[in-house]
Amino acid sequence: MASTYLQLSPKDNVLIALADLPAGMVLGNVVLTGAVPRGHKIAREAIPAGTPVRRYGQIIGQATVDIAPGEHVHTANLAMADHAQDYGIGSEVQPVAPANEERIFQGYRRADGRVGTRNHVGILTTVNCAGSVARFIAEAAEKSGWFARLRNVDGIVPIVHNSGCGMAGNDEGFRTLYRTLQGYARHPNFAGILLVGLGCEVMQVSGLLDPELPRADGNIRHMTIQDSGGTKLTVERGVDILRDLCAAADTCRREPVPVSELVIGMQCGGSDGYSGITANPALGVASDLLVAHGGTTILSETPEIYGAEHLLTRRAVSREVGEKLIARIRWWEDYTARNGGEMNNNPSPGNKSGGLTTILEKSLGAVAKGGSAPLAGVYLYAEPIDRHGFVYMDSPGYDPCSVTGQVASGANLIVFTTGRGSVSGFKPVPGIKVATNSEMFRRMRDDMDIDTGDVLDGVSLEDKGRELFELFIRVASGDATKSEALGFGGVEFVPWQIGAVM
Amino acid sequence: MASTYLQLSPKDNVLIALADLPAGMVLGNVVLTGAVPRGHKIAREAIPAGTPVRRYGQIIGQATVDIAPGEHVHTANLAMADHAQDYGIGSEVQPVAPANEERIFQGYRRADGRVGTRNHVGILTTVNCAGSVARFIAEAAEKSGWFARLRNVDGIVPIVHNSGCGMAGNDEGFRTLYRTLQGYARHPNFAGILLVGLGCEVMQVSGLLDPELPRADGNIRHMTIQDSGGTKLTVERGVDILRDLCAAADTCRREPVPVSELVIGMQCGGSDGYSGITANPALGVASDLLVAHGGTTILSETPEIYGAEHLLTRRAVSREVGEKLIARIRWWEDYTARNGGEMNNNPSPGNKSGGLTTILEKSLGAVAKGGSAPLAGVYLYAEPIDRHGFVYMDSPGYDPCSVTGQVASGANLIVFTTGRGSVSGFKPVPGIKVATNSEMFRRMRDDMDIDTGDVLDGVSLEDKGRELFELFIRVASGDATKSEALGFGGVEFVPWQIGAVM
Ligand SMILES: [Ca+2]
Ligand SMILES: [Ca+2]
Ligand SMILES: [Ca+2]
Ligand SMILES: [Ca+2]
Ligand SMILES: [Ca+2]
Repeated sequence: MASTYLQLSPKDNVLIALADLPAGMVLGNVVLTGAVPRGHKIAREAIPAGTPVRRYGQIIGQATVDIAPGEHVHTANLAMADHAQDYGIGSEVQPVAPANEERIFQGYRRADGRVGTRNHVGILTTVNCAGSVARFIAEAAEKSGWFARLRNVDGIVPIVHNSGCGMAGNDEGFRTLYRTLQGYARHPNFAGILLVGLGCEVMQVSGLLDPELPRADGNIRHMTIQDSGGTKLTVERGVDILRDLCAAADTCRREPVPVSELVIGMQCGGSDGYSGITANPALGVASDLLVAHGGTTILSETPEIYGAEHLLTRRAVSREVGEKLIARIRWWEDYTARNGGEMNNNPSPGNKSGGLTTILEKSLGAVAKGGSAPLAGVYLYAEPIDRHGFVYMDSPGYDPCSVTGQVASGANLIVFTTGRGSVSGFKPVPGIKVATNSEMFRRMRDDMDIDTGDVLDGVSLEDKGRELFELFIRVASGDATKSEALGFGGVEFVPWQIGAVM
Repeated sequence: MASTYLQLSPKDNVLIALADLPAGMVLGNVVLTGAVPRGHKIAREAIPAGTPVRRYGQIIGQATVDIAPGEHVHTANLAMADHAQDYGIGSEVQPVAPANEERIFQGYRRADGRVGTRNHVGILTTVNCAGSVARFIAEAAEKSGWFARLRNVDGIVPIVHNSGCGMAGNDEGFRTLYRTLQGYARHPNFAGILLVGLGCEVMQVSGLLDPELPRADGNIRHMTIQDSGGTKLTVERGVDILRDLCAAADTCRREPVPVSELVIGMQCGGSDGYSGITANPALGVASDLLVAHGGTTILSETPEIYGAEHLLTRRAVSREVGEKLIARIRWWEDYTARNGGEMNNNPSPGNKSGGLTTILEKSLGAVAKGGSAPLAGVYLYAEPIDRHGFVYMDSPGYDPCSVTGQVASGANLIVFTTGRGSVSGFKPVPGIKVATNSEMFRRMRDDMDIDTGDVLDGVSLEDKGRELFELFIRVASGDATKSEALGFGGVEFVPWQIGAVM
């Protein structure tokens, strides 16, 4: 039977109503002093004026008046004190205890030491103008006799995008796309890469291969359509090259590797009122578990943590890490201002009627994915991730764009929480879809890999987090996700386009 | 045999060297006073200091010293006077004489009166998150029995893109994407449209249908993946809808319509030193011919005309038209500045060593596509074109992005000149590829529809322009272009993304 309320952390002094609750109702030790709408907070103990209100075990603000047990906690008695936005770099680092047992998964160990969770061969394009030809090459290869005989290749993946020309050749937009393409070129979920350009574009094939090949295994070939004599000859030559790359890929085998080689991109999209109380905190538990096992988890989506970035700077392992995050926040303020907008993550009237009181509380719903582990590193979009632990990669909140950056940074597994129901895939990386509520899970069960709505029925966040962690290991070892089975991932490569299109 | 020089217009007082020419060589009436590199200019008569130098019949600057016949004309003796950038709105309008004969093509007359050159059914997406499902619907429909029985449908075209969320809901970037999607939804090359959204995106399906349906024939259906219950149910329902839309499309027939219904998007990409002397001026002749027949041609690519916009304002039919172009130029200056760049179309050192002296001369190479007809209108990117004649639509120079805007504005034929060799297609609109030189045409003959390199062998620009005009009519009437035959057009929908990705 569904619970009527939820306590998100033992440290919390508020409960969350899971339904519209009437005055006089008894919730454990407290009696409601008035009606409380679904999603809103209730004091589970006396909270004196000026003392912190905690949700997710974290401070979301201070009582502005004395609050009695059973009272509705919202804008009338809760607000954020100024000092709440003190960055306090490193002031709240709580190391995660290393796990007692070693856990392994079955992965593809690559020449550079990194580990793939899939064994694809990629066709990477420098520019939109090479996109159709990349798809023609893949289609022609898939129709060939040799392709049907492959046993260990998960597929040929054309990576097609909108950009690569009509841009400056040396600015931030160029460097962002360059990092993204390099990140895909060397990704461990690819056993080999065919790089295809048109020839006259700003993002040159030669530039992506220089000063050193992006792949330690040397499994990268390249061609331009103009030098190859047009579409038909490029496709013909491309299929020949793919045959060689696929033959090499077909010799790869999974082997047991420690879960410390997992790099998980965490994402939420199509969020709802349950995201912050079911799927995201459950993912936070799983993130801490993976970190305890030496693995890596990536939080992103800067517009959604804006205004609550000190929740992360206080967990930063060093001043440098904390300051890099603050620098990204300042960059975003400039980015939006120069584009005629502004950063504004304050709770909207809709958020407030749903029960979110402060910007901290709202952002915590997204930050909850990152559990409680120390913040080990901060990275630019698509920057190679070179540390283990819980890290941050700057990105927009826009799902396909954020995930593209995480994959380019080295994520070999994506975990995507969704309340409204997002359908998408991120080849070459498997994406696990986590439903925040059971109604949507049932309605879209062909698309959702796991339901966290049962947290509302009494399943603990700890148990749900462990269930997620076990799912990570199975999927990383080769179990197909729903989106993989459906064939998603052909159009979701969306590099962050920064700057003017010329 | 190839000529060694070319005169681009009878009004010109310079010739263009088509090879490196030695001192003393005789070109018609003149003797070279020194060596002249390929692509450079030679005075064909005395040009007194302070008088205009004309190329394409247009002023590209003034002699800075007296220039003798046979002399090399370049930076040492040619420069642009300040007054050359006087906008002089309407000061050089030269009406095109109406054609004596009426010409027709075989087109699809639609309910709104506009005419299609193809008969596709489109699956239009609001957001990247619906892109894979749109492709699944198309693939499932194409495998169905009913699809194989269609006789008059050119194909099912999923229109997939990178944007639609992670954006403000009311700014310039949103309005630009909105216009683009609306333009595709009502495009006459579609007999019907299935509009697919995810459900929670910023660019809502309902917003695109309100306050009125974009299609006068009512052949537009819509659905969201979240409301339909996920991928499988959406695909199933989508196929059902497509069957109905395709059945209606299959009843459409070509009928004779005047060529005044043609709307041609003119484009150049992968330009080379020949673009401005073969393909572009030949296309200019064809543009004037179509205008003489009451048709419409669209010039775009603002960064490439920058600094020479007065070449167009002087041809403007009204003050309003001229001022709208100037407003776009000012907008671009702001757009690039706020993105940390600048508008700079000055000849580069490479341009100069290739023989281009002034910004006017460089821009004229691109503007030459637009012939000499009066400028009848100026439009925003993807704004519906509602006038006949030669018009301008603002866009970046980046090919797929510029063409996407032209198609959204209503172009039913694309003509694309290329020197390096561009391979691409723009479903639902056929694209004619015009090679600027015969070497590339031969090398990429599977991709190129017509060679204009024979202009260097003595074929006149007039004759070449007429040949292009006849090709327009054949392709508009149903002849497949090379890129259509090869299957291009699946990835080249690239709406102009303006503003921050959030
Ligand atoms: Ca999110
Ligand atoms: Ca997201
Ligand atoms: Ca059915
Ligand atoms: Ca161009
Ligand atoms: Ca172009």
